[in-house]
Amino acid sequence: MPTKMKAAIFVEPGRIVLDEKPIPDVGPLDALVRITTTTICGTDVHILKGEYPVAKGLTIGHEPVGMIEKLGSAVEGYREGQRVIAGAICTSGHSNAALCGCHAQDGPGTRHGFKPVGGWKFGNTIDGTQAEFVLVPDAMANLSPVPDALTDEQVLMCPDILSTGFSGAESGKVRIGDTVAVFAQGPIGLCATAGAKLMGASTIIAVESVSVRQEMARAMGADHVVDFTKTDPAAEIMRLTDGRGVDVAIEALGLQATFEAGLRVLRPGGTLSSLGVYSSDLKIPLDAFLAGLGDHTIVTTLCPGGKERMRRLMAVISSGRVDTRHLVTHRYKLDQIEDAYDLFANQRDGVLKVAITP
Amino acid sequence: MPTKMKAAIFVEPGRIVLDEKPIPDVGPLDALVRITTTTICGTDVHILKGEYPVAKGLTIGHEPVGMIEKLGSAVEGYREGQRVIAGAICTSGHSNAALCGCHAQDGPGTRHGFKPVGGWKFGNTIDGTQAEFVLVPDAMANLSPVPDALTDEQVLMCPDILSTGFSGAESGKVRIGDTVAVFAQGPIGLCATAGAKLMGASTIIAVESVSVRQEMARAMGADHVVDFTKTDPAAEIMRLTDGRGVDVAIEALGLQATFEAGLRVLRPGGTLSSLGVYSSDLKIPLDAFLAGLGDHTIVTTLCPGGKERMRRLMAVISSGRVDTRHLVTHRYKLDQIEDAYDLFANQRDGVLKVAITP
Amino acid sequence: MPTKMKAAIFVEPGRIVLDEKPIPDVGPLDALVRITTTTICGTDVHILKGEYPVAKGLTIGHEPVGMIEKLGSAVEGYREGQRVIAGAICTSGHSNAALCGCHAQDGPGTRHGFKPVGGWKFGNTIDGTQAEFVLVPDAMANLSPVPDALTDEQVLMCPDILSTGFSGAESGKVRIGDTVAVFAQGPIGLCATAGAKLMGASTIIAVESVSVRQEMARAMGADHVVDFTKTDPAAEIMRLTDGRGVDVAIEALGLQATFEAGLRVLRPGGTLSSLGVYSSDLKIPLDAFLAGLGDHTIVTTLCPGGKERMRRLMAVISSGRVDTRHLVTHRYKLDQIEDAYDLFANQRDGVLKVAITP
Amino acid sequence: MPTKMKAAIFVEPGRIVLDEKPIPDVGPLDALVRITTTTICGTDVHILKGEYPVAKGLTIGHEPVGMIEKLGSAVEGYREGQRVIAGAICTSGHSNAALCGCHAQDGPGTRHGFKPVGGWKFGNTIDGTQAEFVLVPDAMANLSPVPDALTDEQVLMCPDILSTGFSGAESGKVRIGDTVAVFAQGPIGLCATAGAKLMGASTIIAVESVSVRQEMARAMGADHVVDFTKTDPAAEIMRLTDGRGVDVAIEALGLQATFEAGLRVLRPGGTLSSLGVYSSDLKIPLDAFLAGLGDHTIVTTLCPGGKERMRRLMAVISSGRVDTRHLVTHRYKLDQIEDAYDLFANQRDGVLKVAITP
Repeated sequence: MPTKMKAAIFVEPGRIVLDEKPIPDVGPLDALVRITTTTICGTDVHILKGEYPVAKGLTIGHEPVGMIEKLGSAVEGYREGQRVIAGAICTSGHSNAALCGCHAQDGPGTRHGFKPVGGWKFGNTIDGTQAEFVLVPDAMANLSPVPDALTDEQVLMCPDILSTGFSGAESGKVRIGDTVAVFAQGPIGLCATAGAKLMGASTIIAVESVSVRQEMARAMGADHVVDFTKTDPAAEIMRLTDGRGVDVAIEALGLQATFEAGLRVLRPGGTLSSLGVYSSDLKIPLDAFLAGLGDHTIVTTLCPGGKERMRRLMAVISSGRVDTRHLVTHRYKLDQIEDAYDLFANQRDGVLKVAITP
Repeated sequence: MPTKMKAAIFVEPGRIVLDEKPIPDVGPLDALVRITTTTICGTDVHILKGEYPVAKGLTIGHEPVGMIEKLGSAVEGYREGQRVIAGAICTSGHSNAALCGCHAQDGPGTRHGFKPVGGWKFGNTIDGTQAEFVLVPDAMANLSPVPDALTDEQVLMCPDILSTGFSGAESGKVRIGDTVAVFAQGPIGLCATAGAKLMGASTIIAVESVSVRQEMARAMGADHVVDFTKTDPAAEIMRLTDGRGVDVAIEALGLQATFEAGLRVLRPGGTLSSLGVYSSDLKIPLDAFLAGLGDHTIVTTLCPGGKERMRRLMAVISSGRVDTRHLVTHRYKLDQIEDAYDLFANQRDGVLKVAITP
Repeated sequence: MPTKMKAAIFVEPGRIVLDEKPIPDVGPLDALVRITTTTICGTDVHILKGEYPVAKGLTIGHEPVGMIEKLGSAVEGYREGQRVIAGAICTSGHSNAALCGCHAQDGPGTRHGFKPVGGWKFGNTIDGTQAEFVLVPDAMANLSPVPDALTDEQVLMCPDILSTGFSGAESGKVRIGDTVAVFAQGPIGLCATAGAKLMGASTIIAVESVSVRQEMARAMGADHVVDFTKTDPAAEIMRLTDGRGVDVAIEALGLQATFEAGLRVLRPGGTLSSLGVYSSDLKIPLDAFLAGLGDHTIVTTLCPGGKERMRRLMAVISSGRVDTRHLVTHRYKLDQIEDAYDLFANQRDGVLKVAITP
Repeated sequence: MPTKMKAAIFVEPGRIVLDEKPIPDVGPLDALVRITTTTICGTDVHILKGEYPVAKGLTIGHEPVGMIEKLGSAVEGYREGQRVIAGAICTSGHSNAALCGCHAQDGPGTRHGFKPVGGWKFGNTIDGTQAEFVLVPDAMANLSPVPDALTDEQVLMCPDILSTGFSGAESGKVRIGDTVAVFAQGPIGLCATAGAKLMGASTIIAVESVSVRQEMARAMGADHVVDFTKTDPAAEIMRLTDGRGVDVAIEALGLQATFEAGLRVLRPGGTLSSLGVYSSDLKIPLDAFLAGLGDHTIVTTLCPGGKERMRRLMAVISSGRVDTRHLVTHRYKLDQIEDAYDLFANQRDGVLKVAITP
């Protein structure tokens, strides 16, 4: 076996480059996975731009599809050569947070319990997936075998986009017959639209201005598409709902404008489910918040992970109820990843997601 | 029967006066209740000061204890002379909001469903309880008979303070073994503290600077009291929890400072349960919100009403598990209500709540 | 206006006949509805056979579609001539049970609170819908306007079958990615299958032996159909799930065999959601129940009612996500209702539901 | 370090004897704990009597309090010498069941997901705690440090009795103001009573005939005690609730009589929360079940485990809200454990729980 591998490495703000790194050693609870397909996420672009700080020299990426190359000495229940995915968020399974079901907020298993570290490790606190190999910690909690009938691209969105998008609807507690607004139809917003439909929303209003994304929103389940460049989206949503407002608003962008519009269209008793990663303080306007008297809920969700989550998402894909293949608009070899970043960071050529194959 | 009654009437900002009014006619679904005890709420002071607008000539007050004087022609299941309370929030029982269990957001039973009106009617959209009589709408949904063994003062807090305070813990979904912080120990904060204890919190941290309220907080269940005039409350709460933060923070004041501190002390995955009535826009600091990645929930609750809620609260009082009698620090006749407003609005003499008896 | 109307009346076990009755007086909270379409339910057949006792002379039927003929004096928010439906279960909105959200268990609004009466009134405790007119109690809580774009037959299943069927999935708390088994694919089972799909189940296994119902099960969302006359359904479901069992089993028949099989296929931690009306004691086998150690839930649900529920169900129909028109296999005039009972009670000619039009 | 230890070993039905065994080797994820206090459970008596089968030669017992003697090579976050407890139910943290929050149904981490094995391992599928040492699997998920201020006997009930008893109230979803009946006041029933009080029940009715347990029931929070040898408990509970029935019934014995009475006293919409380990088929009487029309829930719960659960239970003990010390009525050295079994199995001398100290 070789001892070196190629990896996309953060050098400094503005520079992620493909370089060589040693293939890591495998600890007792780890698994080394040979990446067959991975992708680039909007968060990686934040890292590239220096907006989200990570250590210099870190391998980027958090969406692995691959084969088990080597299992740690204490790992049971898997075999080398098995095809697997792992969630973007790794849970230890044994931290206090994980034992409460809050896997995305997984921290060290100390007596202090919860620590605001979070379970996002790949490409954040440990080396990530845009490489020939990735070391998956707590393999028994995170590795989920891929059904033979599914291709890499069919499951590529499960580790992050699909899990996050669905969680927007799940945390919003969408019920049969709900009216749901989804702000922004990028990859996560599109998956949130699919999630709202999957949970029984009877009316889904997507807010988006890019025509290819508007079309895809309809394909994923949107009944109405509101173009915020042509009309005030909050006013239009109130009109579409006969002044009733929505039961659930899902924020899938991370801006003040979408957060605030989500609040404005909520019916009393409704829920604003926020998926965005914000980069500045937020304002809650007094009137949109009904002065705190509206029985409103605002809930944020970090991508749910763990192998059981991955198993369930792949079951949805297997069932044909949701298909995310059309989200992959471009394909690159790992060797070309710098080109892929260039395309993706600049949102050129109608790109939604790129598939990267080592 | 007389045709006129005394009532505390909003004249203009700065003036609530006792005056005469006709005793109202009783519609088919109404009940006329002879008030035996009522009280003044902080919200009434907002009205007095002109900070919360109501119609000139409106009778103020929303916490009724009394006897049924007359029942509407379509009201069944009650008898005249029966001793009753009604929640500060009146539900129709039949609006779309009510049928969803969102009684506090009750609106007219139209096809449009939810309207942002809210169920707070007494002393807001209809004549209130600081009078000799009050007309209770939708009597069958709102009137709850008072057990003989309970005095007026024992049940006086049920219509608003106790229902609202408990809802802070309920909407926060306090679980056995939780650590809870309650910001401000006025009447509502004290009842929130009692509610958190009642739901099984193992550690309750109250934030309050007034010594008599600090003492009462301990009596209601607080394990620690933090004086925000002597220490930064967020820092102190993090110290008291070994850096872990709290599972649930309850905001019971309505200020940016308490709202923000509540967010700052939340563990990842925790809930900020907000009871305050705000009077300006709120800011969510990016770091306190963990950039939207903390699996946080922010929930607001308007006082739960309806006769079943009142029945349950009186069951708690009957059980002796919570005693709110010591919250009544001063007593006035209705004739002296202007003096009572003067004392209460200026928070003199250690006042917590006043009992008003016509 | 005429004073007499035709109605299908229970005379004695074995005899439901069409006869004349006075058109009822309208109380202050009532609405008189002119029936345009109604149907016959399996429960009506139990009444016909004398298996479920009702008063002699009662009008049968509990699924109304019609026009408002006359409104009670205290009813607001509707107009005569408006097209409406009401749920099979009428809620008062103001009983203690209703105020807890348990509308199907609505009882009189007395201080005693819950009484085991239930909200099923039409054709059970008051005159029902198989007539030219029906008196709807508590009209403001129960009448839901029908969108113009929907035909009578499109909304005919909302009052009972669709509400009950969906509730099987709702009470089972079906989640995205669940595996669900639905036992029996009569009208309620078919709607339960649709409900499980609507809530995001990724695998639905329907148990049914009649071929036309098997086909319809697939159309409603079933991924697998198990014929219990050809294989042991519990064993087959365990095989289909690789020994894992199902997350939720829905019982839609009311027999020991289906109840027991539902328990046997539950994964540890799973839920058996029971919709059937049973007619004898049930047995819980020790092994199927894992001796009480399996973290199992068994939940029963009576048809959810109230106008908000109806509004939501019609929103689902309007969205096109579920279509129940093909459940109507036969159509009769009210004058022919005795023939309709004969067909339906004997399950002849592949009947699923009949539409009855006065 | 010695290589042999004393342990209470199941030899054959009727015989559990103290014998010598090798001290086990410590695998990478394990911890070897030196037992300082343990106890005997009713389940152990079932094993003794041969009613619950375990392997011959197995060490019995599942309630460990002790010191960490040796940590596995992959275990982090603990130190040798640390004082700890572990739940009776061991979770791996990484099984599909565990990742769903269903820790008590933990199975091997295979692709098949849930297996009906259950997380009860100590004294069931692996050597237990009635010994000088016990090997704790998946130590990082299970070991919870004991606060210095708490004695062994203060935390001795946390691993099983307190966790199980509280879960009766938790799974029953007891709310503020609920009326709760608890059937049987043995150690688990007493802790269920404490749990119901801790969650805000306003009226708790305990069913018990033994006078010392009746007294303790009152001390733990019961408002009424019904002696089933003197009155029909279901009838008496209906009388005490004015015919309303209870919101939640907790079954804490495992017999048909208590299960059935629990159903009979439920209000429509109520929950029967079952903790008992049954030894024969159960019958659900048609009338008690309201023919399946009562919106009833029956839920069973196996003792919740994992270190976060233990941390929370010890927080409750530390707060002084619940005190289980008086449940320890007798104390024995490990050398005398055969005498302890004799006393406990025969329920002599008012025994509730025995403390065993090696």
